[in-house]
Amino acid sequence: MEPSGKEMFAVVARDGPARCGRLTTRHSIVDTPAFLPVGSKASVKAMAPDELWALGYRLLLANAYHLTLRPGEELVRKLGGLHRFMGWRGALLTDSGGYQTLSLSKLASVDENGVRLRSHIDGRKVEMTPESVISGQRALGVDIMMVLDECPPYPASVDRVARSVDLTARWAERSLQAKRQSDQLMFAIVQGGVYPELRKRSAAQLTALPFDGFAVGGLSVGEPKPQMLETAALVSELLPAGQPRYLMGVGTPQDLLAAIALGYDLFDCVLPTRNARNGSAFTSSGVVSVKQARYARDPMPLDESCACRTCRTFSRAYLRHLYLSGEILAARALTEHNLSFYCTLMSQARIAIASGTYEIFRRTLAERLVEGVKEH
Amino acid sequence: MEPSGKEMFAVVARDGPARCGRLTTRHSIVDTPAFLPVGSKASVKAMAPDELWALGYRLLLANAYHLTLRPGEELVRKLGGLHRFMGWRGALLTDSGGYQTLSLSKLASVDENGVRLRSHIDGRKVEMTPESVISGQRALGVDIMMVLDECPPYPASVDRVARSVDLTARWAERSLQAKRQSDQLMFAIVQGGVYPELRKRSAAQLTALPFDGFAVGGLSVGEPKPQMLETAALVSELLPAGQPRYLMGVGTPQDLLAAIALGYDLFDCVLPTRNARNGSAFTSSGVVSVKQARYARDPMPLDESCACRTCRTFSRAYLRHLYLSGEILAARALTEHNLSFYCTLMSQARIAIASGTYEIFRRTLAERLVEGVKEH
Repeated sequence: MEPSGKEMFAVVARDGPARCGRLTTRHSIVDTPAFLPVGSKASVKAMAPDELWALGYRLLLANAYHLTLRPGEELVRKLGGLHRFMGWRGALLTDSGGYQTLSLSKLASVDENGVRLRSHIDGRKVEMTPESVISGQRALGVDIMMVLDECPPYPASVDRVARSVDLTARWAERSLQAKRQSDQLMFAIVQGGVYPELRKRSAAQLTALPFDGFAVGGLSVGEPKPQMLETAALVSELLPAGQPRYLMGVGTPQDLLAAIALGYDLFDCVLPTRNARNGSAFTSSGVVSVKQARYARDPMPLDESCACRTCRTFSRAYLRHLYLSGEILAARALTEHNLSFYCTLMSQARIAIASGTYEIFRRTLAERLVEGVKEH
Repeated sequence: MEPSGKEMFAVVARDGPARCGRLTTRHSIVDTPAFLPVGSKASVKAMAPDELWALGYRLLLANAYHLTLRPGEELVRKLGGLHRFMGWRGALLTDSGGYQTLSLSKLASVDENGVRLRSHIDGRKVEMTPESVISGQRALGVDIMMVLDECPPYPASVDRVARSVDLTARWAERSLQAKRQSDQLMFAIVQGGVYPELRKRSAAQLTALPFDGFAVGGLSVGEPKPQMLETAALVSELLPAGQPRYLMGVGTPQDLLAAIALGYDLFDCVLPTRNARNGSAFTSSGVVSVKQARYARDPMPLDESCACRTCRTFSRAYLRHLYLSGEILAARALTEHNLSFYCTLMSQARIAIASGTYEIFRRTLAERLVEGVKEH
C-alpha cells in the first residue's frame, strides 16, 4: 500500500517559511532539509556506500536515463534492484532523464509521445516516454521516482517554455497512470523557466494531481542567480505545505541556505563531488583550492572546524601533493570532506530551524563563507 | 641507538628454508613473510592509510626519488616526516631511486659519483649520490632506508653487470658512512643480473658490511621466470640467516609462494594495485578480469572465500559496471580486494610455516591459482 501523504512526510518544525521534515521511504527515514549526493551511474564518484552512510546520508540521487543505457534496468532488477546492486542500505531517488533532453539536446528530439535520443555511449537510438521512464524506475526499485519532464534551455521564448509546461503536465498525467499500484513514491517536476505566469500555470497543473512530492526543475541552467532565487521563491509558495519540495540541481552552500529559507526540503548538486575532483574544498571559511601554491607548505587541515576523516588525517600540503601527483586519494579525500561539509551544513540548518534561529544562522554562515580564508 | 640485529629481526619459525620472522621497526612490528604495498608518491594508489592498516598491513613502500622531486624531502621533514605527511601509523621503507636509473634510463647517466637524471616531471637536472639518497631518506624519517644501487638492464653483458656490481658495492660503503648515527635501518641491494658468479661476488661484498638487511635487486626486469627463481635461490643461501631478506619487485602470488620457499621475508610489487586499476582481481581460484563480458550478469563476489569489504558488498556485475563507466570506485574496490588477497596470502603462508606444512600449502594453493575460474 502507498503511504498517505501525512505518513510519508511530516513537517516537524518551522521557522518562517523554513521547515524541518521527516521523509519516510521504504529504505530509510530522511531528516529534511537534506542534500542528496549525486550518483548518476550508481556510484557517488570516489565514494564507497558505507562511507556515505557514515557521513550521515540516507538518500542518494541516481539517474534512470544513465542506468537504462548501462547496465540496463532489467539487469539491475534481476540482480535484486538498485540498492542491492550498489550496496547501498539507504534510500534512492532517480531522476528521470528529462534533464538529459537539455544537457544532451544535440542528440535529442522531443514530441508528444516522448524523447528520442542517440545514446551518448554508443550512438544507439533510445526512446524515453513517460511510461518507459516509470517502468524503468520500477525495475530499479528506487524509493522515489521522478516523472519525465521537458526542460527547456535558457534563454527560451515564452511560447517555447509554455509548450514545455503543458507537455510536462500531460506527461505527468501519463506517469501517474503508468505508476499503478507501485508503493514507490513519485514526484512531479514544475517547469516554466523564468516566466512567473508559466511557473504558476505549471504548479497549478501538477499540484492538482496526486503526487507524493513536487520538484522544481529548469533552474540553475544558466539564468542569473537572482532570477533563480526569485523563481524558486515564487514556486515554493504555490506548492502544498504538507509535501516535500525538491529544488533540483541547486547548488552552492549559499544557494542551499537561501533555498531552505524559502521552504525547500531536498536538494541535489554535483558541486561538492565535481569540485572535489577539481581540487576544490568547501570550508567554513570559504573555498580552499589545493591547486594554489599558497598551500604547498600548509600543515593545517582543509577546515579546522571539520571532524571528517580527511581533516583528521591530512594537511593541505599533503592534499596538494596528492592532487599534483594525480593520486586517486586526492579525489577521495576532497570528496569525502565536501560531502561531510554539505551533510553538516544541512544538520546545522535543521538545528537552527528547530531552535527558531534560522535567519541569524544563515546570515552568520553566509558571511563567513564569502570572507575567504582569512588567516592566509 | 641502533637496535642490534637480533632485536631488530628474529626468526620465530622455520619450515625448510622458509621462515617466519618478526621485524621490529620504529613504527611497527612486522610479521614476515610480508608483502609491502607500493606507495611511490606517498600514497598507495586508490587506498586511504586507515584502510591499509585495517587490512593488516604494517609496512609500506615509498620511493625516495619520486618524493625528492615532489614535494621535496625538506618539505616533508618540516611537516613532521613522511609518516605524518601520509597519515600512516605503520612503518615505511623507501626505495632509493636506483631502480629509476633503469626505468628512466633514457634520462639518466651514471658515473662513480652517482646518477644524473632529468626529472620526468619538469626536465630539471637531478643528481643522486649515495650520500644524497641517504640524506633524503633521513629527512623523510622512514624506518628502513635502501642504499643507492645501480640496476643494469636485461639483457646486459657480463662486463657491464660486473661494473654495476662493483659500483653498487662502493656506493654501499659510502651509504654506511653517510648513515652515521641514524637509528633508521638500512638495507643493501645485491645486484649481478642473471650471472651466478656476479651474484656471489655482490652478496660477498655486501654481507661483509654491517647492514640491517639485504635486498635482491635487478630481478623481474625482463629475464625468464626460471632464471629469476634460480637467481633468487642462489642469493638467498648466501645471505645471513639472522637478517631480513627482501626480494624486490616480485611479484605474482605464485612468485611470492616460490620465493617464501627459498627463505625470503619481504616483497613488494605493483601488481595487486596496478592490475586492480586495470580491472583485474586476484582470487583464490585464479584471475577475474571484470572487463570480460561473462561477468555482466554475475551476482557473485570476486572471490567467494574472501571477507574483504569489496567481496562483502559488491557483485562482479556491479564491479564490471563501475569499470566500464570509468567510476573511481572500480579502482578502489578492486585495489582493496587485491591488497586483501595479498595480505591474507602472507598470513596463510606464515601459519603454514609455523605448522610445518608450507610445501603442501604452497602446492595446493598454486594449483588452484592456475586452474582459473572453474564454475564459469
